[in-house]
Amino acid sequence: MEKNYTSGWKEKDGKKVFFIHHRVRYADTDKMDMVYHGSYIPMLEAARVDTLRAIGWVYDEMEKEGVLLPVVDLQVKYFVPARYDQILRIETHVGEIPTSRLKFAFSIFHESTLLVNAKVGLAFVDASSSRPTRAPKALVQNLYSHLLIHD
Amino acid sequence: MEKNYTSGWKEKDGKKVFFIHHRVRYADTDKMDMVYHGSYIPMLEAARVDTLRAIGWVYDEMEKEGVLLPVVDLQVKYFVPARYDQILRIETHVGEIPTSRLKFAFSIFHESTLLVNAKVGLAFVDASSSRPTRAPKALVQNLYSHLLIHD
Amino acid sequence: MEKNYTSGWKEKDGKKVFFIHHRVRYADTDKMDMVYHGSYIPMLEAARVDTLRAIGWVYDEMEKEGVLLPVVDLQVKYFVPARYDQILRIETHVGEIPTSRLKFAFSIFHESTLLVNAKVGLAFVDASSSRPTRAPKALVQNLYSHLLIHD
Amino acid sequence: MEKNYTSGWKEKDGKKVFFIHHRVRYADTDKMDMVYHGSYIPMLEAARVDTLRAIGWVYDEMEKEGVLLPVVDLQVKYFVPARYDQILRIETHVGEIPTSRLKFAFSIFHESTLLVNAKVGLAFVDASSSRPTRAPKALVQNLYSHLLIHD
Repeated sequence: MEKNYTSGWKEKDGKKVFFIHHRVRYADTDKMDMVYHGSYIPMLEAARVDTLRAIGWVYDEMEKEGVLLPVVDLQVKYFVPARYDQILRIETHVGEIPTSRLKFAFSIFHESTLLVNAKVGLAFVDASSSRPTRAPKALVQNLYSHLLIHD
Repeated sequence: MEKNYTSGWKEKDGKKVFFIHHRVRYADTDKMDMVYHGSYIPMLEAARVDTLRAIGWVYDEMEKEGVLLPVVDLQVKYFVPARYDQILRIETHVGEIPTSRLKFAFSIFHESTLLVNAKVGLAFVDASSSRPTRAPKALVQNLYSHLLIHD
Repeated sequence: MEKNYTSGWKEKDGKKVFFIHHRVRYADTDKMDMVYHGSYIPMLEAARVDTLRAIGWVYDEMEKEGVLLPVVDLQVKYFVPARYDQILRIETHVGEIPTSRLKFAFSIFHESTLLVNAKVGLAFVDASSSRPTRAPKALVQNLYSHLLIHD
Repeated sequence: MEKNYTSGWKEKDGKKVFFIHHRVRYADTDKMDMVYHGSYIPMLEAARVDTLRAIGWVYDEMEKEGVLLPVVDLQVKYFVPARYDQILRIETHVGEIPTSRLKFAFSIFHESTLLVNAKVGLAFVDASSSRPTRAPKALVQNLYSHLLIHD
């Protein structure tokens, strides 16, 4: 049984942080012998979807109930290149109390080395009208009760 | 004006062949300093969609008229690795007269060197019933009249 | 702790099969609301690399010792589309006793439904000469002793 | 001959801007029926490499001369989703006079609609020492003489 791809919670500065792992594949790398800068984007997606799932919020179900969450903003800072076969730990924070936007912050580590910081902003969109809408109250409550945000 | 990304027709063994070009990007490569074997798949997609467009058959419109064309079969043989910044020429042949399947064959060249051969089979699917359907007659006629297939 | 992304062994027809799991992400899907046919390729890569690792054979180390394993042959048959958020199980078999090639066969399942069958052939290449070479004997022994191949 | 994938120059606010085109493929889309937010990253790469090539500066050659240009910073703002089969126009600006960093700004349009704005920062790195280095003077001169930057 492979033990390294676990996911789970840790505490950081009084807030909860959810982490997942990703093993770097050939598909992620480029000829500079490092992870291609675009290859981190799907890792960030997996990290935030698994974070929401861990607090009982399944993105796929929210979508079926008519709320879409397209990405509207992305910022990535690359400090140290990730290498083939490394197991990366992607930590997900919720940046602030969601209103019409849901803002995530991510830190990607190899062992204790910080490789990448990222921020992703998503907009709540009503699927029927294609217009912005507000964060479902139950989601906000959920983020509070799981200590992903606090006042 | 960049002249290298042209597309067009050539004749090969009495049949017409349509070609497009693709410049290899970092995103396509992997740490073995060559194009990742999966990176050719989107090139094949672009090649066959542009081939159909070149005979007046827009895939997007066919889809809007209720015929889907999912890929059901893929075969790729890799002979020589493609390298960063090379301009690849992807040649598309129609393998045989389409019935419930549309079969393409591809050859990918750098200059005169054959790098990759591939075959892709797509199934005609009725979008409303999700069931197999037959190739639209107009498409078959079109493939004949443009010499992509012959008896 | 997420339990669904485990990997491990099962027996099938007297041979051992190694499986990994992959949760389908937005990044894997396309507008036909299914997994893009090219998105399975990195899953196959992860499956075979993890299979070799599970028998103590780290691809990255083999590479550092001067043996490369580029993909030379790929065949995929798509039966049933995979959907967003499904957890896919990718089973890896070793097709036959490796000589100058290492041949893998894969089956991708969602629960008990077979979605995709695939075969991937890799060539042993001496990194210094860029010429074909034979499978390391220790690897062949290892495949036998872990029941991935038998006579 | 396909006319839509041309590239070339236009003037904007007294500075030159280089544009390329990209036709949206299935591979670029996701199940939300739009271009996946990560799929724009390789388009930005193609846009800046072709911009440098258009002023006689081939990225691949710079690399062979020992200067690497890894991406260290990425910012993307998504305004309007791009759709399948649209021809996107990616415009590349050079943000400022390069020192140890080369900063690009991009605007992605469909026809006259602005879809995406992006900024990418790359660091000049000496390949032998893996340490930051300064922009080659000839490159800076070249950017001036082609009006990509001015005082």
